[in-house]
Amino acid sequence: MGTLFIGSGPWATLETGVLGPRNATALLDAGERQGYAIYVEDGTIRSGGTIPEMRTRHQSAEVVDLGPGLVTPGFVDPHTHPVFAATREDEFEARNLGRSYEEIAKAGGGIRNSARRLRALTAEALAEGLSRRADEFLLHGTTTIEAKSGYGLSTDSEIAQLEAIRLVSRNHPLEFVPTFLGAHEIPDEWRHDREGYLRLLCDEMLPRVAREKLAVACDVFCEAHVFTPDESRRILNRARELGLAVKLHADEIRPTGGAELAAEVRALSADHLVQVSEAGMAAMRDAGVIPILLPATSLYLNLPKDAPGKRMLELGLAPALATDFNPGSSPTRNMSLVLSLACIKYGMTAAQALGAATWNAAHAIGLGGKVGALAPGFQADLAVFDAPNLRTLPYRMGENLVRTVVKRGSIVVQDGRRCR
Amino acid sequence: MGTLFIGSGPWATLETGVLGPRNATALLDAGERQGYAIYVEDGTIRSGGTIPEMRTRHQSAEVVDLGPGLVTPGFVDPHTHPVFAATREDEFEARNLGRSYEEIAKAGGGIRNSARRLRALTAEALAEGLSRRADEFLLHGTTTIEAKSGYGLSTDSEIAQLEAIRLVSRNHPLEFVPTFLGAHEIPDEWRHDREGYLRLLCDEMLPRVAREKLAVACDVFCEAHVFTPDESRRILNRARELGLAVKLHADEIRPTGGAELAAEVRALSADHLVQVSEAGMAAMRDAGVIPILLPATSLYLNLPKDAPGKRMLELGLAPALATDFNPGSSPTRNMSLVLSLACIKYGMTAAQALGAATWNAAHAIGLGGKVGALAPGFQADLAVFDAPNLRTLPYRMGENLVRTVVKRGSIVVQDGRRCR
Repeated sequence: MGTLFIGSGPWATLETGVLGPRNATALLDAGERQGYAIYVEDGTIRSGGTIPEMRTRHQSAEVVDLGPGLVTPGFVDPHTHPVFAATREDEFEARNLGRSYEEIAKAGGGIRNSARRLRALTAEALAEGLSRRADEFLLHGTTTIEAKSGYGLSTDSEIAQLEAIRLVSRNHPLEFVPTFLGAHEIPDEWRHDREGYLRLLCDEMLPRVAREKLAVACDVFCEAHVFTPDESRRILNRARELGLAVKLHADEIRPTGGAELAAEVRALSADHLVQVSEAGMAAMRDAGVIPILLPATSLYLNLPKDAPGKRMLELGLAPALATDFNPGSSPTRNMSLVLSLACIKYGMTAAQALGAATWNAAHAIGLGGKVGALAPGFQADLAVFDAPNLRTLPYRMGENLVRTVVKRGSIVVQDGRRCR
Repeated sequence: MGTLFIGSGPWATLETGVLGPRNATALLDAGERQGYAIYVEDGTIRSGGTIPEMRTRHQSAEVVDLGPGLVTPGFVDPHTHPVFAATREDEFEARNLGRSYEEIAKAGGGIRNSARRLRALTAEALAEGLSRRADEFLLHGTTTIEAKSGYGLSTDSEIAQLEAIRLVSRNHPLEFVPTFLGAHEIPDEWRHDREGYLRLLCDEMLPRVAREKLAVACDVFCEAHVFTPDESRRILNRARELGLAVKLHADEIRPTGGAELAAEVRALSADHLVQVSEAGMAAMRDAGVIPILLPATSLYLNLPKDAPGKRMLELGLAPALATDFNPGSSPTRNMSLVLSLACIKYGMTAAQALGAATWNAAHAIGLGGKVGALAPGFQADLAVFDAPNLRTLPYRMGENLVRTVVKRGSIVVQDGRRCR
C-alpha cells in the first residue's frame, strides 16, 4: 500500500523541465499549480493529479496532508565540502579585516589549514561531524547533496573522508553523491614537489578510489594558485580512464581557461565561473557542461564581481545552483538564500532559480531523471515551505521557510524540526 | 524572588560599551567571557558575575540554565517598516528582470503600491499582521525594534498604523519604538500638489501624532525622487517643535546632502547612507548622529556600491545595524545575516557588528542605557545561539542559530520556537 501526499497550496512540480544536460537549451517552467497530490510507493512517485481525482483513484492509500504551503522538489545541492574537522571563523574575520583568500591560503590557512586538522581524525570521527551537518541540510529543505573529499590531501585521509560519507549514507536520510577532490590543494609536504603529488593523485589515490567505488566523480581545483589547466587535464583524464565522471572548480578568482578545459574533457559540470570567458561559456554550452554557480561564495569572499549567470541564460546554458557549503568560503546550508542571490545577481526568475536548484542540479551530479522533479518515476523527495507562492521563496531573503521535508516518501522534517 | 540566568558558554555582555551617541568615538569591545550568570528581578538585570559566585549570592533565586550556547543582548533592530497590508514579491521579480527601484516607484509601485493596499485596513486588521511578523523577529533573536508608519500617507491611515503598533505592544513581548513616517512618499492624490501634502504633514498629521503620543520620532525619506533636503528640513523642524526626535532616510540611492541635514537638525540617526559624502560623515560625527546601516537592503536592491561603513569606523562614528524589514526592499528579519553582511562589506569584526546591532542600535532609537547590554540596570533581554563563540555568529551566514530568547526576564523563544 502506498502513500498519497496532498497539498492544498501551490505546487512547483517541475515536471515540464528541460530534457537533460546534453540538450538543455532553456531553463524550465516551474509548472506552479494550486492544489495537487502525488501517489508514492517504495519511495518513488507513481502518479500525480488533482486532489479529488487522486483520492478517488487511491482510496486505500495512507493520506499525508502537507497543508497549505508551497511544495517543491527537495533541493539538490550539487557542490558541497561537508567533511571537515573544524570551522574557520578566525579566517573569516581576518579576511574581513583586509587579508585576501589567496594570502590566507599562501600563509598555510585555507584548505591546508583544514587538511592539517583533518588528518588526525578517523572515518568514524569524521562521520560523526558529517551526520550532524547533514541534519542542517534537511532542515533547509535539501534532500540530496554532492559531497567532496579534499581536506585530507593524503591517500589515507582522502579515503577516510569518502568512507565517512559512505558511513553516514547508510543511516541518514540525506542522499550523498561522493566526489573525490584530492586535487583541492598541494599539501604542505609536497609544496616543493608538485610532480610527486600529481603522481600520488594519478597512480595511487584515483585507482584506489575507483577500485573501492568510493566516489562517482573526480573534481580538481583549477585556479592560478592551485592546479594549472595542464595539471588539471592530466588528473581528469586519468579519472575518466578509471570510469569516474569529471568536474572542475573553474575560473573562480582569476580566468585560467577552466571552462574551456571543462568542455574539452566533457565534464559533468564546471563550478564557480566568476571569471569565465565568453568563449568558455560557448564551449561549455556546445559540450553540454552544466555551470554550477555559487553566489553565496562570491558574496562571502566579497569578490569584486559575480559569475555571469544572466549571460549564461542568454547563451542557452542551463545553470545549476549550489551552496558550496564549506568551512572557509561558504559556511551556509541555506539553499533558499542561494536562490535569493541568484535572482538578485543573475536576474533569474523564481522559477528559473528553483529549477537550477533541483532539476538542473540533479543533472549536474548525474541524477537527472531520478531526483529534482515531482513527476512519475522520480524519488519522492519534497520540501514544503511556509509561503503562499513560488516567488515568495527567494523574496524572503535569509529566512528559512521550510516546514516539512520528505525523503524517499518518509517525513524527515516536520514543523521545522528533524523527525527521528 | 528573582531569577538567576546561568550559561556555561561564551557571553558577550557588552557592558564595556561606548558611553552614548554624543561621545561615541569607538565601537565597543564585546567583553566575551566563558561562563557567566546574571541575576534578574522585575525584568531588569540587577547584577552579574561568575556562576559559582552568583549561585552563592542568590541561593533562593529560581535558576534558568541557558546551556552551552553563546549569550548576547537581544538584537535591537533600529529601522523597520513592519506594518503593511501585503507583500511585494512581484516587484522583486520585476526588479531582478531589469526594472529599477525608482522606475517601479515612478510607475506607482513601491511605497505607493503598499499605500493603496493598506488604506483599506483598520488598525485592528493591521495589528493582526504585525503580531505574526513580530513573532518572526523574536525567532531571529531580536527583542526590540523601531517600527515606522509610512505605508498609508493619509492622516487616518498613518494614525491607524501607529495605533496598530500600540495595540500589538500591549500583548506581545517584542518591544516597539514607534516612528512617524508620513513623509515616506508623495501619495497619488497629492502628486500634483506637493505643497498641499507638506502642509498636511506639518499642520495635521504631526500635531495629531504628537498629541496622541503615537510616536517618539519623526522620519523623512530624503531622496532625489521623494523629499528634497529643503522639504525634509521643514518637516523635521516641525517635528522637533512638537517634541519628537528626528531621523532621516539619507543618501541611499543618490547623494543629496541628507547626512549634512541630519547633522544640522541634530537627528538621532541618519539611515542608509550608501552615497554619503566625506563631509556628511564628518558632520554627523561632530553632531553625534548615529549612522544606521542597512546592508541587506543594498544587497537586495543590488546597488552598485555599499555604504562606507569601514570609513565611518575610521572616522570615529558609531554605526548601528538594522534589517530595514519592509515588503519592498528588504523582506528579511534575520539580523544575524545583517551582521554577516556588515563584517563582509564594512570590514567589521564580529564584536563590532554585535555592538552595532545592540548597544549602538539602542542609542539610535533613544533606548541607550536601557537595552543593548547585559549589565546592571539594563532590561533582561537576551538571545542564546547555538554557537561556540562570538565569531561564529556572522560566520554562519544565512543560518539562524537562535535557540533561546528572553525578554524582560521571560523566556519567549525556547529551542527555536515561540513559547506561549
